[in-house]
Amino acid sequence: MCVEIGREGLVVKKVHVDLGSRSYDILIEAGLTNQLSSFFDERELRKRIFLVSNDSLFKLIGENLMDNLRNNGYEVSEILIPDGEKHKNLETVENIYGCLVDQRADRTSMLAALGGGVIGDITGFAAATFLRGISYVQIPTTLLAQVDSSVGGKTGVNYGWGKNMIGSFYQPHLVCIDPEALSTLPRREFQSGLYEVVKYGLIYDQQLSKLVHNSLENIQNRDPIVLESIIGRCCEIKSEITSNDETETDLRRILNFGHTFGHALEAVAQFQGITHGEAIGYGMIAAAHLSVVEGYLDGSVANNIIRKILQIGSLPPIHTFPTENILEAMSRDKKRLGMQNFFVLLKEVGKTIVVGNISEKVLAEVWEETKRVGASSSL
Amino acid sequence: MCVEIGREGLVVKKVHVDLGSRSYDILIEAGLTNQLSSFFDERELRKRIFLVSNDSLFKLIGENLMDNLRNNGYEVSEILIPDGEKHKNLETVENIYGCLVDQRADRTSMLAALGGGVIGDITGFAAATFLRGISYVQIPTTLLAQVDSSVGGKTGVNYGWGKNMIGSFYQPHLVCIDPEALSTLPRREFQSGLYEVVKYGLIYDQQLSKLVHNSLENIQNRDPIVLESIIGRCCEIKSEITSNDETETDLRRILNFGHTFGHALEAVAQFQGITHGEAIGYGMIAAAHLSVVEGYLDGSVANNIIRKILQIGSLPPIHTFPTENILEAMSRDKKRLGMQNFFVLLKEVGKTIVVGNISEKVLAEVWEETKRVGASSSL
Repeated sequence: MCVEIGREGLVVKKVHVDLGSRSYDILIEAGLTNQLSSFFDERELRKRIFLVSNDSLFKLIGENLMDNLRNNGYEVSEILIPDGEKHKNLETVENIYGCLVDQRADRTSMLAALGGGVIGDITGFAAATFLRGISYVQIPTTLLAQVDSSVGGKTGVNYGWGKNMIGSFYQPHLVCIDPEALSTLPRREFQSGLYEVVKYGLIYDQQLSKLVHNSLENIQNRDPIVLESIIGRCCEIKSEITSNDETETDLRRILNFGHTFGHALEAVAQFQGITHGEAIGYGMIAAAHLSVVEGYLDGSVANNIIRKILQIGSLPPIHTFPTENILEAMSRDKKRLGMQNFFVLLKEVGKTIVVGNISEKVLAEVWEETKRVGASSSL
Repeated sequence: MCVEIGREGLVVKKVHVDLGSRSYDILIEAGLTNQLSSFFDERELRKRIFLVSNDSLFKLIGENLMDNLRNNGYEVSEILIPDGEKHKNLETVENIYGCLVDQRADRTSMLAALGGGVIGDITGFAAATFLRGISYVQIPTTLLAQVDSSVGGKTGVNYGWGKNMIGSFYQPHLVCIDPEALSTLPRREFQSGLYEVVKYGLIYDQQLSKLVHNSLENIQNRDPIVLESIIGRCCEIKSEITSNDETETDLRRILNFGHTFGHALEAVAQFQGITHGEAIGYGMIAAAHLSVVEGYLDGSVANNIIRKILQIGSLPPIHTFPTENILEAMSRDKKRLGMQNFFVLLKEVGKTIVVGNISEKVLAEVWEETKRVGASSSL
């Protein structure tokens, strides 16, 4: 549950993630990044911190953040890593190990990830594996990381033919979310995060779904007050779901709404020209169609959902990717996960059903329909 | 507690390690390696297995073991890695990832480590981090691995200036111990494992201590019946201790009896010319001396303990390593662990006390005395 806690005049939204000895808090507040020390103090976090970030974020946010921590008794060094998904690999993790070893980091040291999902995932994995696990905190700076990747304890890097092939489940000690960090986020990246926000509403919370669409203009204008509420609710939902299924066996699957088609689309596009969020946008459109075809969802409700997804912004064209390639990629993904091919479908807004054994023919029809929607929206 | 379970005429000693959802069994029986399939069946372990081993062990034990599994419906491939501590690194782990990726291993695949501590630690780490964690079983083939490294969930590789710098705590699904695998183990390696056996008696179990010394000849002759009892009891002790302290914060420290001096000796010797077990042999002699100097242990009891340690076999000479280097290495180790310098001392056989803040002067004296014992025994 989201509660508000007061501290020296700052009212901070807090979501507690209950995982026994691995429990942690998510704090959400505009301006939080410049006041971290008091929240670290409160939790008696480690005093020696290695801040992992990239050049531009470090200049934009990291330097001030470090000043605040240093002025309050923390010893902070930065570890700057190159930006982007293509550097989400073991080489970058080894570079972090190298810095930690050179600076004689020990079990009382802590990592802090300042950045988007890539930095968070890499840093979490380094923390999970250095000296068999040291503390880390997440300070996500993209909307996608704030509502999704920073919560849930999934860490990892890409390897070989797959994303996140190497990694572990390892929980942070604290997640600090500052909606003000989003003010400089490129429009397309912000929009990409919004598709995940929409997802939470669709799978779990009709109220959130309404709130997002009623406040869309304020959200797009990055109003910190509205963003606090929206992000806070998304974190609550993700926390509720992942606490009950830490290592992704059952309930957590509903978070994959839109992801079966979405992942396949990303893979076929070779992760170029389409962001993760945009792929999930398309994936949710496909899932809504499929929910109708399979007889779970009313057609008019589906159309309404699709219209609202399209209101988020324009989606890149996808008509150049052959449908059979998408189906092939889905089948590969399924094999990799060693699971039944399953789809998270909607019964209504906020209610899902997980369905398996859907024929390739139906999937192909649904994807053709999705491409048509894409073609008309992205023209 | 160690119980005996019957299955198709085979009576198998079983130690259950109770760690909630991460619980697992340790099975101990002469001839077990050729009958694994029924025990895998019983636990519904994964049917697709990647057996990690080295060339010689694979020929000696692995091929038969694979036949038994294959004849009983398992799909088994081998991944052979180079032998020895110097290959316990990220490069070897990456080679394992590469094989798994090439062969399209997925979440339903399982790793099996056939070998000593190095193979077990590397395989465990690969299992912990491939696809955020897949199942693995330990089939330890050295005495040291059977009584120590295969139990407790510590996995990892060396990096930079330290041993096991990179790793994680990750529990196996099953540990299968076959004392017959020890029949071809080189004498010195067998003897090295015995020092850890002696350690369990000294820190936890007077009865075990007596049993080891009364049966020393049978043990040295590798009598499988005696070895089953001894190894079973060691596994029980390690399991009791680690179940109560999975990630090494408190109780587990008593397992470090002899290790503070021992690790320092290994580091100063640059891990050459002295095995881990031998270093622990010396470390236990030093710890017994220190227990007397600090007033916890009676001098005659200490002499008795030291005499019994020396009966295990001859220890390599250590007089060439300057005492100040040993003290320096201990101080580095302490810093690395980010902990107080602590020593596990004996109050009597089977009873320990953890003590901190011992002066360098006392430590130097104790080590000088240990060197004298070493000089007289290794002449």
